[in-house]
Amino acid sequence: MLGQDGAACCAPMLREPLGEEAAAELSRMFKALSDPVRLRLLSLIASHEGGEACVCDLTGPFDVSQPTISHHLKVLREAGLVGSERRGTWVYYWVLPEALAKLSALLQIPAVPAKAPA
Amino acid sequence: MLGQDGAACCAPMLREPLGEEAAAELSRMFKALSDPVRLRLLSLIASHEGGEACVCDLTGPFDVSQPTISHHLKVLREAGLVGSERRGTWVYYWVLPEALAKLSALLQIPAVPAKAPA
Repeated sequence: MLGQDGAACCAPMLREPLGEEAAAELSRMFKALSDPVRLRLLSLIASHEGGEACVCDLTGPFDVSQPTISHHLKVLREAGLVGSERRGTWVYYWVLPEALAKLSALLQIPAVPAKAPA
Repeated sequence: MLGQDGAACCAPMLREPLGEEAAAELSRMFKALSDPVRLRLLSLIASHEGGEACVCDLTGPFDVSQPTISHHLKVLREAGLVGSERRGTWVYYWVLPEALAKLSALLQIPAVPAKAPA
């Protein structure tokens, strides 16, 4: 399972302090997730039949214009969270599982959880 | 282990489309992680001895002013990612493990990963 491979490859950031470079790269990925429309787009793409979605599948559920959707998809792509390819009329999008697995692993709580005060 | 409890409680957002309300709440938490100084602060707090850190432990590693650090800590606290308490002269911070476990679980790749095109 890809999520578990991701967990094996990357130490949780809570086990040791993150370096400056790693923090800069990761913050760009989290920034792409910091918008509700982008989060829903990512979720729609990943949960779509076959794991990929045409841009034509992605505008219906939203109250925003198609150019706005295209902008959000571009942000997700530039952050390395989705891949895309034009086939004929439409552009298709799919999630890049390694990127999500990396973020997921980084946020995992190590075996000894943070202490809450008494 | 808290991370696993978190994973059990929350379905990965990639299994089914995220609703509007959930996306709004989650995007606020990701926004708090979208700054490299805040990511490093969170990591410093969580990896500090005993799982909590005094604000006096947190200014040294950064090239930014103490008021800026305090602002970033406030953003992390308001996003529900850290707790804090004043004890005497200093404010102490600790990570809220349930919040991180929730984000980590949401980004987990379901058993059938997204398909990459041929």
